[in-house]
Order: sequence, then structure tokens, then C-alpha cells
Amino acid sequence: MKPPIYVINPNSSEVVTAGIDAAMAPLRMVGGPEIRCLTLAEGPPGIVTHFDVQSVAQPLALRADALAAEASAFVIACYSDPGLYVLRERLKQPVFGIGECGVLTSLTLGERFGVIAILDASIPRHLRSYGAMGVMGRFAGELAIGLNVQELAQYDRTLARMTEVGRRLRDERGADVIVMGCAGMAAYRAPLQQALGIAVVEPTQAAVGMAIARVQLGWEGC
Amino acid sequence: MKPPIYVINPNSSEVVTAGIDAAMAPLRMVGGPEIRCLTLAEGPPGIVTHFDVQSVAQPLALRADALAAEASAFVIACYSDPGLYVLRERLKQPVFGIGECGVLTSLTLGERFGVIAILDASIPRHLRSYGAMGVMGRFAGELAIGLNVQELAQYDRTLARMTEVGRRLRDERGADVIVMGCAGMAAYRAPLQQALGIAVVEPTQAAVGMAIARVQLGWEGC
Amino acid sequence: MKPPIYVINPNSSEVVTAGIDAAMAPLRMVGGPEIRCLTLAEGPPGIVTHFDVQSVAQPLALRADALAAEASAFVIACYSDPGLYVLRERLKQPVFGIGECGVLTSLTLGERFGVIAILDASIPRHLRSYGAMGVMGRFAGELAIGLNVQELAQYDRTLARMTEVGRRLRDERGADVIVMGCAGMAAYRAPLQQALGIAVVEPTQAAVGMAIARVQLGWEGC
Amino acid sequence: MKPPIYVINPNSSEVVTAGIDAAMAPLRMVGGPEIRCLTLAEGPPGIVTHFDVQSVAQPLALRADALAAEASAFVIACYSDPGLYVLRERLKQPVFGIGECGVLTSLTLGERFGVIAILDASIPRHLRSYGAMGVMGRFAGELAIGLNVQELAQYDRTLARMTEVGRRLRDERGADVIVMGCAGMAAYRAPLQQALGIAVVEPTQAAVGMAIARVQLGWEGC
Amino acid sequence: MKPPIYVINPNSSEVVTAGIDAAMAPLRMVGGPEIRCLTLAEGPPGIVTHFDVQSVAQPLALRADALAAEASAFVIACYSDPGLYVLRERLKQPVFGIGECGVLTSLTLGERFGVIAILDASIPRHLRSYGAMGVMGRFAGELAIGLNVQELAQYDRTLARMTEVGRRLRDERGADVIVMGCAGMAAYRAPLQQALGIAVVEPTQAAVGMAIARVQLGWEGC
Amino acid sequence: MKPPIYVINPNSSEVVTAGIDAAMAPLRMVGGPEIRCLTLAEGPPGIVTHFDVQSVAQPLALRADALAAEASAFVIACYSDPGLYVLRERLKQPVFGIGECGVLTSLTLGERFGVIAILDASIPRHLRSYGAMGVMGRFAGELAIGLNVQELAQYDRTLARMTEVGRRLRDERGADVIVMGCAGMAAYRAPLQQALGIAVVEPTQAAVGMAIARVQLGWEGC
Repeated sequence: MKPPIYVINPNSSEVVTAGIDAAMAPLRMVGGPEIRCLTLAEGPPGIVTHFDVQSVAQPLALRADALAAEASAFVIACYSDPGLYVLRERLKQPVFGIGECGVLTSLTLGERFGVIAILDASIPRHLRSYGAMGVMGRFAGELAIGLNVQELAQYDRTLARMTEVGRRLRDERGADVIVMGCAGMAAYRAPLQQALGIAVVEPTQAAVGMAIARVQLGWEGC
Repeated sequence: MKPPIYVINPNSSEVVTAGIDAAMAPLRMVGGPEIRCLTLAEGPPGIVTHFDVQSVAQPLALRADALAAEASAFVIACYSDPGLYVLRERLKQPVFGIGECGVLTSLTLGERFGVIAILDASIPRHLRSYGAMGVMGRFAGELAIGLNVQELAQYDRTLARMTEVGRRLRDERGADVIVMGCAGMAAYRAPLQQALGIAVVEPTQAAVGMAIARVQLGWEGC
Repeated sequence: MKPPIYVINPNSSEVVTAGIDAAMAPLRMVGGPEIRCLTLAEGPPGIVTHFDVQSVAQPLALRADALAAEASAFVIACYSDPGLYVLRERLKQPVFGIGECGVLTSLTLGERFGVIAILDASIPRHLRSYGAMGVMGRFAGELAIGLNVQELAQYDRTLARMTEVGRRLRDERGADVIVMGCAGMAAYRAPLQQALGIAVVEPTQAAVGMAIARVQLGWEGC
Repeated sequence: MKPPIYVINPNSSEVVTAGIDAAMAPLRMVGGPEIRCLTLAEGPPGIVTHFDVQSVAQPLALRADALAAEASAFVIACYSDPGLYVLRERLKQPVFGIGECGVLTSLTLGERFGVIAILDASIPRHLRSYGAMGVMGRFAGELAIGLNVQELAQYDRTLARMTEVGRRLRDERGADVIVMGCAGMAAYRAPLQQALGIAVVEPTQAAVGMAIARVQLGWEGC
Repeated sequence: MKPPIYVINPNSSEVVTAGIDAAMAPLRMVGGPEIRCLTLAEGPPGIVTHFDVQSVAQPLALRADALAAEASAFVIACYSDPGLYVLRERLKQPVFGIGECGVLTSLTLGERFGVIAILDASIPRHLRSYGAMGVMGRFAGELAIGLNVQELAQYDRTLARMTEVGRRLRDERGADVIVMGCAGMAAYRAPLQQALGIAVVEPTQAAVGMAIARVQLGWEGC
Repeated sequence: MKPPIYVINPNSSEVVTAGIDAAMAPLRMVGGPEIRCLTLAEGPPGIVTHFDVQSVAQPLALRADALAAEASAFVIACYSDPGLYVLRERLKQPVFGIGECGVLTSLTLGERFGVIAILDASIPRHLRSYGAMGVMGRFAGELAIGLNVQELAQYDRTLARMTEVGRRLRDERGADVIVMGCAGMAAYRAPLQQALGIAVVEPTQAAVGMAIARVQLGWEGC
């Protein structure tokens, strides 16, 4: 039996990890790899700044090192993909970033992807990622809902803002598929898709889905 | 229990379908969706020309229509993604093309993807696809092995040619991940990766892997 | 004397073919190639869906085959360029798609091209074509007038909608040249250009113009 | 009857103009516009440097001004398109540059265009043009034959060099269509295409072909 | 001691040169190169049309030739970079265009640059420059203030228009850094940045800053 | 008098810092900002892996914080630009990365830049940076000299390898300007340029040159 896939939430919020864990339910198959969701205790409560993104790379790497003997893949559950290449260079297992996987998955669901960010300050960082990925030709736009962490707990208000921003991406920027630019928003995916009438990608689910296939195929080792 | 994923080989070669079917083994999980591989009897023995690509779209659509009541997803097992958008517009289920999924998957395994084609004549068609996908900024090159269908049956010779072409893509064009530009070459993936020392993507496996996740997540319906 | 250029309308609407034929008048020169406009009887009344686009490729190819002995060039008179590469691979004569030629011609008339589509559903398909053509860096935007075939017969209403959409492309998206994203709208070109104050390209005329030169030059044969 | 199209050779070499004039023969149709080829007496013997390119813009503009009352279009017969936008801004007639038209025409004949330049020094200037045109995604490469003006008169040697450079563009850079990066090489087009087995575009013919259609259609005036 | 950097204003307006000269104050360092600002007497009062841009290249080159014996670098103080490559090909000293340097400098200050132009007619020319520079992927938009030369003398009105246009670039187009698309607007830089809250680049200062470093480093000579 | 510019070498090798310091000589002007070169004691001996790049971001940020009260700008002297955005988000002073500045500067010296890397493993990371910068359209290629740190101390051997790699970039990839992809190679710049005959950019000098101008202009504060 294969060792588990580790989904590491690099912020220290257990509630976010719990949300991610719940979102994994449909991807847990009897004959498939176990999916274990962990919280990086050393991480900040939320990953907002560039400092946050950089600061979790090292503890993420150490955590992954410690788990490597009994892991079949790693998923970094933050849309900024902190430490993605650090983990890739030191582990023989496949490593997935939810930002990368969310965007790539969206390319199979629409022609131009729009992204809903939490805060404006993250958008330039995300733009650099899309440039580095070479997919700016498919990018429709990215807009932030502008809520802080406490406000995010208010379900109706958050969904309303996500819907509003999603409509602007669809109608003003021409997006025909939406990527949720944050981990752990899985609870909003279905109602948001319902409200917008276009596909909505939850990036952690997208990444774990790709990880499961990779683990089953056993392509690592080169 | 969810209905099966249908992997349709749009050429009429049962041996190709059998090869695809064998390659599905690691993706068949007890709790996951069933994977059924079919041959499009109406298809040509191999899909080589633009005429071949176009001519299978309609029978593929009809076949998918007939299966739709009991299907959870469709995978079109030809690297030229024939009929991909035709099926997408008429089915509520997710539809995957192995060309699209093979390339997108490669973007998580390397910085610049190279492609091994069967014949030179297909390369311009593939280039248009990469342009349409908006990923030319990640494209290293594509080279053909130049073997006809009968010659492809010669395992050692084919592997030698693939290895030679893969080395040129790696050394002369800077590819650090290889996509096999054809369905049903799964038997060559592991030895080719071993010979080249860089990851090799088998596109049908890549596509079915993405399909399994999509089926489990049930994102269809928008 | 050279054989004629065949302009094939791949939908079965004779009225559309008649409109195309009328638009050819200025391109019919005494010493130039004859221009014959045909209707593809097997085609659907209008080419709207991806299925429509794919389904006409084969009858188009057969029709072109039948005409090949006495043709000097072919023009496919549908903005989605159905069957373009199918015809190119089987004919020694040059083959032109009005989508491709309309866009390329617009690049000599302005810096950023905007496109007026009939229906929203065609826009993603057109975007993939522009990506495949490698001209997305010159693309300003594409918007649909959203009229069905019957409504298109209402001249004033159609012109009003085209003018409205053209103004949005010019003012909101920065287009300084407009491509009409459909065959047989030649009757609207001059008044639309008059209303917008920027050049408007009628794609069938653009394509036939390029075809005449190619026939006169006799570059085919490689 | 419409006034003539003026093809202005911006270098002062009458022999180049004579070659251009001869190449116009197939484009002279009884019912089509007259094509008059002129030499810009103020131009340098050949346009090699950036200084040359810039220095001819003003006399070109004055010459075009003087002809404007009796002209239906202008073609600037130098691959660097000197003065193209100067003429476009001051004339109501359409103005074509052979560099722009040569490249756009090549996009209908192959997937990746290669260019044969005369001298290495022109290549960076041409690259900027392709960038400005937004077509770098279709660009295979550009190589110079490295002959001076006197050597160009040696037919066999020049053809041999063009063939050699064309083969490198085809085999090493992946070009499947060649643009001749200079006016007045029409005499080499057919044998070069014969030798290379891929289409070769003579840019002045390409540009005049587009001009004829534009004149016939009478789109100017916006 | 090194010879001076010459900043040449290619229009004939001494008041513009005086404004540029005043803006050089902070870049004049005791141990650094002298900065001399000159007016091109042969230039038009303002550089507006393509004709203007082309027409100053030759007198600029002659002026630079005359100064070359005692110059360490040249800066062409017009956002359209007239004659940039002409000067580069004939001088051993480094030559800078303020358009090029303004945009490159902006790329270190923000993720997407917006440009404030004087007149709409210049925008397509600028777009071609950004395309030639290969930086369209970082371009947010360009809008004109639409004031003529006389109106530009009205400080408050001009600042109000620049602020309004800058806000549109920031809010509607997503610019997070602004380039002033004209020489000699240095007086507006600080208040405009204050009003917009994002960095504003004055391109002549940007170019002279790069020139000083180049002169000190003495990289010329290859 | 303005406070100094701090050039921080994020690896712990004092000899590298000494080389950088020596290279600053021409940029030290009497009336210009002081340039102080520091070694990040917490850094690894050399920055090779992704882990190295990430691990220095936090100590770099703390070091910059400590210096911020008396600094006018910061330059991060590692071609991978570690911590660039971390420092930018927390400091009011301008912050420069030598990778970014080296490439931007090269765009004023040639049409297509080639990069000489130390090790193959860094090249994919650099490619992502160029993609994020949006300048891949100007990129000719990057090749590594493949020497380890000890071997780099051998002057003649290193110069020979750099020359060999530079020639390949120039002749096989079409580079007409070279960027040295590492800090502290200033001693090789002049002889390498001499050997190659095309401009060579030393990135720390390029970055500090841009920093001096920014400090003098005082654009910070928005």
C-alpha cells in the first residue's frame, strides 16, 4: 500500500486546515492514496505578505523532509505556492502547488481564467506567477474581495463579495472560468458556480486530484 | 455509484486501445470511477492527416451521445484532440483531450516541454494547438521519430528512435520534460524516462488522471 | 486562361451565398481570375456550433476535390475557417480562410483589431484561432451582437447593433480597426465604417483579394 | 478608371526598380489598377543602415504627396518599411510596406516563417519590426546571406547562398515558409522554392497583391 | 575628466529644454559626468506626427556627429525615441531613448505600467514600440490627456488632466506604475505621484540616470 | 548629505563581497551617494539551490530593517534576486535586484540577451524570472559554465569557459548582448566583451547604477 499524500497548510490556522480536510472527502477513494492534511505550526495565521510567503519555505521544507520517508506526494495548500521549488529540489516525490494546479486545471474548463483574490496586495505576486508559468495569454483578470480574515468567517457576506467580484471578472474582463485564489474556500465553490453560471475551480481540490493520479502512476524517480 | 469514464480511441486499431487499456491499470482504484476504453470503429487505422482529425469528430460525438446517459466523463485518446470542443459543447460531463492534458501536466514537471511526434506532418497542427492553448512560452520544441505504423510495432527500434529524439529535445532545444505526442505509447514511458533522465508524460494517463479527480469532485453542471 | 477561384459558403443558405457573390463585384477584373461562389448544400443553415464547424470539413473537402481539376484557388467563406487545413493538405491550389485573412488584413489597417461576432458562443473558438495564429498581442477584443439568423435580416436593427458593439470595441477596448466576424455582411461594411470612423474589414473580400494575387503569381506547386 | 498604384523603390538603383517592375507582370490585369514602379532618386544606392532607413522617409513622403492626386495606393518597396507610418498619416490612400505584407502573407503559407536577409546588420531592425507587428510567436529565425550589392549581381552565387541559408532556416530553425527579406529578388523566388521544397514569399509581389484588392474594394476613406 | 552627457531635445522649443535642464539638477553630482541639455534647432516646435519623428532623425544624427568628439553619452529627450538606432549605429558612445528607459525603469517600480500620452495620435506609435521592446505582457494601458501645446502651459489644468487619466489607468486598467509619455513634464511628477499614490516615472530623468552609470562604467567600446 | 546605498551580498563569502566592492569604484562619485557593500553572515557560502534562495530572504529582510534608518537604497547582489519583493514591501527606500536590473539594462544594449549561468540547476529558476518579468520575447538563451566555486577562482579557466559559452549564445542562439548571471564576476566583464565583440552586462554594476539615479531623484515615498 502506498504512503499518504500530505497536504500541508502553510498557515497556522487549524480552521483552514479543517476546511481543506473536509474538501478532500470526494477525493478519498478506497483504493486510492490516503490524503492527510496538516497545519504548519510555524506558519503565520494567514499568508498575506511576501515575507509570509518566503518565511514558510524553510519550515515547510523541514516538515516535508521529516515526512518524506512515508509520503507519496506533497501538496502545498497556499495559492502563492510558497516553497514549491524548494520542496521539488529536495524530494523524490512529486510536489504540487495549488496556485499552479488551480490555474492549469482552469485551462481545461474555459478559454480565459479570472481569479478571485482575498486582498489587493497579493495580485502583483500572482501576476508574476502567471508570467512565470507562461499563461498570461489566457489570463482575463484578477480582482480582490478585500475582506480580512475575521470577515471571511461571515459566510453570506463573503459569498456575496465573491459573487460580485466573479461577475465583474465575467462581464467586464471576459473570464469564462474562475479560479478561487486562496486555499480553503471549498465551501463557496458550488454556490459561487451556481451564481455565476461558469465553472469555478477550487485549487486545493485541483492539486490533490493531480497528485492522486501522479501517485498512482508512479512517475517519480527521474 | 458513479458511471464510468469512457476513454475513446478515435482510431480503429484495437491494438492501440488494448495498449491504452493496459496503461489504465494504476488509475483503477477500488473506490474510484470505472475506466472503460473503447475503439471508434468508424475511425481510420491511424489519425495522421488533418482529414483524419476532422473526420472522427462527428462519429466521436455520436458515440459520446449514445454513452452519455451512463458516463461520468470522456477522454479523447488522440494527441490532436479531435472533436474536443464538439463534445464539450454537447455534453454535461467533463471532456478531456490527451494533447491538452499531456501538455498541462508537463508544466508541473519541468520548465520547458519537448514533444516527440510520430510524423513530421503532425507538428504544424500541434504547434497551432500550443498557440491556441497559450503555452508557447514554455515550448522547447517538437521532433518526429518518423516511423510508420508497422515500424512502431518494433519495440527496440521505436524506443531507440524515441530516445534519440528525446535527447535532441533535451540537449539542443533545452527541454526538461518530454510529452509523448501520441496515445498508446505507455509501454515506452518508463524506459524512455530512464534513458533521458528527465520526466516523460504519457498523455492518456495524464488525461484520465485529471478526469478521475473531476468526476470525484462533481464540478460538472454549470 | 486560368481556372476560377471557388468561394465556398459552407452553410446551406443561398441568400448568404448571394450576398457574398454580390460583394465580389469589385474584385472581378477583366484580366483577373473568375470568381465563382458556391453553396455547400450539405452544410447546416448557419454555422454556429463546434459541431457545425467540424461537420462541414468533410463535405467541403469532397466538394473541393471534385472542383480541383478546374480551380486555381479556394476560399472558405466562414469566419471559423472550417476545414482550412484539410483542404490545404489535399490540394495543390492555395486555400484561404476568411477568418485568417480578415485578421491578417486588419493588421495593415490598425494597431489593435476588434471583432464583431454574431453570437457569444463563437467567441472562445475565435480566441483559440487568434492564439493559434499568434496574433493575440494585437487583439483588442471581440463582442457579439447577439442576433439570430432571422433578426439578421432586419437591416436597420442589425446595423444599429453592429455600430453599438463596434463603438464599445473602439472606446472601451481600444480597437482601431474592426473585423466583421462573419461571412456575407458585406452590405454593412461601408455604413459601419462611416459610423465608427475607423476601418472595417469584410473578411471574404479580404480573402478573395489575397487569393487573386496568389493565383496571378502562381506560387503554388511547392 | 482608377488611378495607378505607385510602387516606390526608396533606393536609387534603377536596376532594382527594373527588377521590381518585371516582377509585377503577373499582377497587371486588364481590368485591374495600373502598377507604376518608380525610383526614389534621393535615396541611397541601397538601404542598409538605420540612417538610410530614416533618411528616405521624408523624400518618400514628398514624392507620395506629389503623386497623391493621381494615385490609388502606395507600396514602399523596401523590406524595412521606411516611412510606412509617415505616408499612412498623410495620405487618404492605402499604403503598404513590403516587410509587413511579406510576413503577413507568409502566415497563410506556413506555420513558422524564416527570413533571408542580405546583411547581418539588418536583422535586429527586422526583429523589432516583427515584435512591433506582434508576430514573434510565428517567427522561426532570420539569417543573412552576407553578400554586398555587387556580389548580388552574380546570379548563381546568390542563389546558392540563398539556398544554403534557406536550408538552415528550414532544418535548424524549423521554418516551413521563407520570406525574402529584400525587394527585387523576384528572379530567385521560383528556383529557391524549388530547391527548398517549401513556399517562398517575394514581398513586393505580396504587397502589391494586397494593394490591388484594397484599391478594387475602395475601403479607404475612413 | 570625462566629457559631458548630451541630452538633446529634438523639438525646437527652448522652454521644453529649459524644463529638462531644470529636472537634471539632482543628477548633477560633483564627481559625475556633466549633463548638457541642447535644443535641436532644426526640429519642429513639438514632435507630434510620424513625420516629425522621422524628420528629426537626420539632424539629430548630424548634431550628435558634431558633438561626438567631446561626448560620453547621448540621451534623446523625446518619448518616441526618434533616431535612437541611427545614433547607436554611428556612435561609439552609449545612446539612450527616454521612451525605452522610461518603460524599463517602470518595470522596477510596479507590475503593470500605464502611460500618460499627450495626444491620441501618438498611442499606436507607442504601442509598436512596446511590442518591439517585447514588454507588452507588462503593459496596462495608455491614455491621452488631449491637450495641445498651448494648453500644456496651464499648470493646474494639465495636472488635473494627468491626474484624471492616471486614475483611469490605475483603476480601470490595473496600472501600478505610471510613465509620463513625454519629455519635460518633470514639474508634474511629484504632485502626480502624490495624487495617485503609485510611482510615476519621468522618462528623461530615468534615461539620464542610466546614462550616468554607463558613462562611469565605461562599457562602451565593443 | 544622503545616507548610503547598501549592496548586500546574500552569500557569506567575503571574497565575493570584496569583488563586488572593487567593482563599485567607477560608480563612487564625490557628489553621489556612498556605496557600502556588506556580506550577509547568515547566508550560505554560495547561493545555488532554491533552498538557498529562499533561506536568505528572512535574514536579508532583518538586516535591511536594521539598516533602514540610515539607508537610501538597497541592492541585493545575487542574480536570483532573493527577497526582492520582501524588502520592497517593508522598506520605503527603493530596492533593486541584480537579476532584474541586469536584464533590463541589457535591453538597451542589444536585441536579444543571452545569459551565462554558473550551474545548470539555476537556469529553470532564471527562466521563471524572465517569464515573470515578461521579457521572454527578447531572450536568446542561457547556458551554464558548469564550474564549482573552487574552480571559479581559476581566472584563466573561468574566462575560457565564459568565452566558450558566450560564443555559443552569440552564434547558436543569436544573442547580441550577454548578461553575466552571477554577482561578483566584474573582473571578467571587460575581457569577455573583448573576446565576444558584443556588450557584456555586469549585473551588480547595472543595479547600483540604477540605484544611484533613483536615490538622487528621490522618487521613493509613494
